Amino acid sequence: MEHDTIQNRAGAGAAGELADVDEHTITALVNGRIAATAAPRLAQIVAALTRHLHDFAREVRLDEDELMAAIAFMTEVGQMSDARRQECILLSDVLGLSMLVTAQSRRKPAGCTEATVFGPFHVPDSPEHAPGDDIANGAPGAPCFVRGVVRTLDGTPVAGAKIEVWQADEAGCYDVQYAGLEQARARATLRTDAHGAYRFRSIVASPYPIPHDGPVGRLLAALGRHPWRPAHLHFMITADACEPLITHVFRAGAPYLDADAVFGVRQSLIAEWRLHPPGPGPGGVTLAQPFYTLDFDFVLNASAGVSESA
Amino acid sequence: MEHDTIQNRAGAGAAGELADVDEHTITALVNGRIAATAAPRLAQIVAALTRHLHDFAREVRLDEDELMAAIAFMTEVGQMSDARRQECILLSDVLGLSMLVTAQSRRKPAGCTEATVFGPFHVPDSPEHAPGDDIANGAPGAPCFVRGVVRTLDGTPVAGAKIEVWQADEAGCYDVQYAGLEQARARATLRTDAHGAYRFRSIVASPYPIPHDGPVGRLLAALGRHPWRPAHLHFMITADACEPLITHVFRAGAPYLDADAVFGVRQSLIAEWRLHPPGPGPGGVTLAQPFYTLDFDFVLNASAGVSESA
Repeated sequence: MEHDTIQNRAGAGAAGELADVDEHTITALVNGRIAATAAPRLAQIVAALTRHLHDFAREVRLDEDELMAAIAFMTEVGQMSDARRQECILLSDVLGLSMLVTAQSRRKPAGCTEATVFGPFHVPDSPEHAPGDDIANGAPGAPCFVRGVVRTLDGTPVAGAKIEVWQADEAGCYDVQYAGLEQARARATLRTDAHGAYRFRSIVASPYPIPHDGPVGRLLAALGRHPWRPAHLHFMITADACEPLITHVFRAGAPYLDADAVFGVRQSLIAEWRLHPPGPGPGGVTLAQPFYTLDFDFVLNASAGVSESA
Repeated sequence: MEHDTIQNRAGAGAAGELADVDEHTITALVNGRIAATAAPRLAQIVAALTRHLHDFAREVRLDEDELMAAIAFMTEVGQMSDARRQECILLSDVLGLSMLVTAQSRRKPAGCTEATVFGPFHVPDSPEHAPGDDIANGAPGAPCFVRGVVRTLDGTPVAGAKIEVWQADEAGCYDVQYAGLEQARARATLRTDAHGAYRFRSIVASPYPIPHDGPVGRLLAALGRHPWRPAHLHFMITADACEPLITHVFRAGAPYLDADAVFGVRQSLIAEWRLHPPGPGPGGVTLAQPFYTLDFDFVLNASAGVSESA
């Protein structure tokens, strides 16, 4: 109980608290407590958050029952999360916070492939595959052959770029959403060849609802919002001396392009996924069922060297 | 996969999304999704929260790493909480949000006892005790005899008012913080008598740090803030035709009155806890050790009938 020492340390900043604490004076009081020795960026963020949070609570005249409901909601959001489910990312996504942060901190020079939200379904260290491999690994859906080139803004091919790709299956589920499924499905790590080219076989992406059996789903329902996302492939591309790119490729003409539950759609990321009848497909394979092809080139931002935010 | 139906339901509000999504346009886009049929108060709260949260993220130019750190923090806050520990209330408390909400939604007519924060340590249905009982039930600390009268603003005594009281012991811990301790200690439910009077024996309250072995404690440390609260007793008083009162009584002259980690101190709630030498105490008992007495009267807001926020 070394409170005397600690009190002395904190003493100066708290002067005047007893004068008049109310819903207006408290904001300066809280932010006045942050020590001059605090980590400067953290202090800036917390002070701004406190100010905006207080402004919010005053504007709507939040009452105690509502605050307790909000606390119970946030507690449930945390408790719903585990290695396979990240409810707090979903909350940030559906409030548009994730896309806002991506848009402002991953803005690229014109001509570069735009970024979009990361989402909660990325898994590090997904299986390495050789060019042309079928990465579906049993995930259900019509075959889809994807290929393209990774370049920098001046047109230089990027050899040896690391491409991570992940997607939902025709049931609208990622592999990690299947209880008991241990192996990766429709999820892979690939490398571009000496010409910057990549190619793989997978399944066609389908629209899907974000997980909505938890508190975020209840919130959407109460607001009259649907949980659907338009069909897309996720890509994360990293290469030496380039800004990492986290983005999607969306399927042109598919539902929800104008109503993505997480606000991630950008015009430049929409591409034609061409449907072909059964017959010869890419790489000499013959398909007994209809299949899709998608060509999509990526343009990395080499000028920034590494991440803008680093 | 009934997405066509759901898409049609959500269609109209989403027009224009594809035109230009960036960190500025996204706020109107998100709030434009809330359906006209949504619960009006919830819709108002979420739309205002979204606007202020976006303003915050733009102001500090929050980047993706910082957003992911915030998401990891909030997830841990939720997961730290259980039946005996509510980390999310602590977070609201240390950011001053709890006290702000209490101050604005529990404002009383002049002369009424002021409200303060609820805190995370209340337990419903604590044991009923008769007037004068020792409610400590083994909690360590010097004896403290507390008494007073509950009245309304016009001086009328409130008979049969339900008084819930809870407090930390001399080690700075509430009963619920002791693993394995099942019975209530220094926590009770009492009733005022026909004259509005209440009295009980307990232990003297001590200053204590809020639980700081979790994410909220790490945040305080990083901001150079201490986790201490000044000594206090918690009271919740409910009576027919009166606004419920949730408040503390603080100990005059004790450490941290000007530096409460949760900003709950109000001048009107500070009272003298008188120290007496060993000898005769209240109710005919003789004490072999020094003991304290505290007299505190409560004035309820009868004019509001029930809770302002109801």
